[in-house]
Amino acid sequence: MKYIESNPKDDGFRMPGEFESHDGCWMLWPERTDNWRNGGKPAQKAFTDVAKAISRYEKVTVGVSAAQYNHARHLLPPQVRVIEISYNDSWVRDCGPTCVINEKGDVRGVDWDFNAWGGLDGGLYFPWDLDDLVAKKICDIENIDVYKAPMVLEGGSVHVDGQGTLITTEECLLNPNRNPNLSKAEIEEVLINFLNIRKIIWLPDGVYLDETNGHVDNLCCFARPGEVILSWTEDKSDPQYARSSAAKEILETTDDAMGRKLKIHCLDQPDPVFISKEESEGVDTAEGTLPRLPGDRLAASYVNFYIANYGIVMPVFGDPHDKDAVEKMKKIFPEREIIPIPAREILLGGGNIHCITQQIPLRKN
Amino acid sequence: MKYIESNPKDDGFRMPGEFESHDGCWMLWPERTDNWRNGGKPAQKAFTDVAKAISRYEKVTVGVSAAQYNHARHLLPPQVRVIEISYNDSWVRDCGPTCVINEKGDVRGVDWDFNAWGGLDGGLYFPWDLDDLVAKKICDIENIDVYKAPMVLEGGSVHVDGQGTLITTEECLLNPNRNPNLSKAEIEEVLINFLNIRKIIWLPDGVYLDETNGHVDNLCCFARPGEVILSWTEDKSDPQYARSSAAKEILETTDDAMGRKLKIHCLDQPDPVFISKEESEGVDTAEGTLPRLPGDRLAASYVNFYIANYGIVMPVFGDPHDKDAVEKMKKIFPEREIIPIPAREILLGGGNIHCITQQIPLRKN
Repeated sequence: MKYIESNPKDDGFRMPGEFESHDGCWMLWPERTDNWRNGGKPAQKAFTDVAKAISRYEKVTVGVSAAQYNHARHLLPPQVRVIEISYNDSWVRDCGPTCVINEKGDVRGVDWDFNAWGGLDGGLYFPWDLDDLVAKKICDIENIDVYKAPMVLEGGSVHVDGQGTLITTEECLLNPNRNPNLSKAEIEEVLINFLNIRKIIWLPDGVYLDETNGHVDNLCCFARPGEVILSWTEDKSDPQYARSSAAKEILETTDDAMGRKLKIHCLDQPDPVFISKEESEGVDTAEGTLPRLPGDRLAASYVNFYIANYGIVMPVFGDPHDKDAVEKMKKIFPEREIIPIPAREILLGGGNIHCITQQIPLRKN
Repeated sequence: MKYIESNPKDDGFRMPGEFESHDGCWMLWPERTDNWRNGGKPAQKAFTDVAKAISRYEKVTVGVSAAQYNHARHLLPPQVRVIEISYNDSWVRDCGPTCVINEKGDVRGVDWDFNAWGGLDGGLYFPWDLDDLVAKKICDIENIDVYKAPMVLEGGSVHVDGQGTLITTEECLLNPNRNPNLSKAEIEEVLINFLNIRKIIWLPDGVYLDETNGHVDNLCCFARPGEVILSWTEDKSDPQYARSSAAKEILETTDDAMGRKLKIHCLDQPDPVFISKEESEGVDTAEGTLPRLPGDRLAASYVNFYIANYGIVMPVFGDPHDKDAVEKMKKIFPEREIIPIPAREILLGGGNIHCITQQIPLRKN
């Protein structure tokens, strides 16, 4: 593994859409007891279900601490590879590499700066030094060379169509707790150069109370080029209504990089989800880590799913909207199996299935 | 990765000779300051030289702690893969998997019990729990399924010709600090079943003062089927003389598994090597770890080399015998390049180049 001094755009590499072919998927085992309740055991069960589901479609590697290696190896099925790695928490979408590919099928990684969703100004825990090394380490294991991008960015804060269009949120990317010294134009320039983008669609805000400062991957994603899926609610009294409506208006009135109008699929969100007293009490109190307080609303969304090679692993919440969401997903993706996974235990940690996964594109070399 | 209940012999797998084709080589970064002098820095330099040399011929992966990851990544060249792993010390020959292969080219690992060369009865450090997991973890990373062998054994205590012959030493394998509850016949049965062996050649002792209790890989190895290389001295006053002579007599009078007489190449050992006062003072004192005392003789031998795909990486000591040893090796292996590496810093830790390497056979599937 080596760092490459140029940038992907100059070298003819682009970030593919998640719906393009994968070599495999990475995850990181949930362990920290100040974020995952009951010693991480319920979350480990949910992560295991996600890993099992994805491993039906592509290779899965789960990174784990030395302390949890044997336990993870015991719970995960044999086809899942388990590798020791150190990290601060298990959000590999955000701390892992963003992979880019060229026409020959060579794959390289982009290693962003990582500051735990806001650094000392609203970041979710301290320190985040081990997370910041995860992208590099994964690329090393996968024999992928790396571009170091000169900007704080989490993988979950951008989605692309693989054809030059990127969607993101102003709430996150323009938040002064990420890149206070970069202007919007300078941030765009980095995205253009490091993901090979021609059109950036700026949505104003992400999902209400999303502790990532509104990652787009909880609000909106590409199903394929020209088609997006938007987390939605018809309840005008829900603070999410204004957020989703504002996003929809922009999506309806903006062309993508290829000059297409976007087809928009709206996916009704589940009823509001709140942390219970029992759930809150299962989380260790720690200085510097966002507390999980009883009654706090969680940023639940069906859009936070993972697209695997021939399947989609999507969160469900034991909610009346689950059934409609799964049915709608089947219609949007007739070419893929839809696997619903109960994801409340992942949501309790602050994210969902997309946040805990990171694809490696299929290499042809 | 999964554990397989049967054994390699029943499944048609055999341990190949080290001279057969490799997929790659594993090493572990030297770090413990109670074994490697001056914070491990001189040994890290020597290990880097070994990794660089081997990487000219095959893939090299170096396992490293989280604490040393960045430093190892910085010192090692880009073509060497660096992966985080936990271990007690860096002797991957002994704690790593012994790989077996079948006619189709499938590769599996054998995971022996490991007790740090003697457990509580003369073992070299305590604890050794992380070392004992290394074989499993390497197989997991390499996507290799594993046989769990019911016996304490280190990879450096056996050599095979890939055609049914194994050489080992009674000093090590019959030492009561390894498998006190197994008879010689029972130990042979495990070797027969787990390495697919038909003939075991028992040499009495290894190299004088070898702290592994006489690992064969410091005394004698196969150059190819029917040919062995033996560490030798003409100095009858040296305690090594009786050991090498006894081994030679057995090698001269024993047929291999194919009924061949063995061709024996004798490689004169270097002059006796002693730990200096300065070297001793660079090693941390620790309870439970073998001390490195000034004036202690080290078990130096040229036979402790690594056979890579088209090259051989062999230790030299700045000794008058170096030149002859290298020349002789060139004659024994006309088909391979001979790369001499100054290895005193590895020897000071208690082993040599073969001890710090472990090959993965070339897979055809």
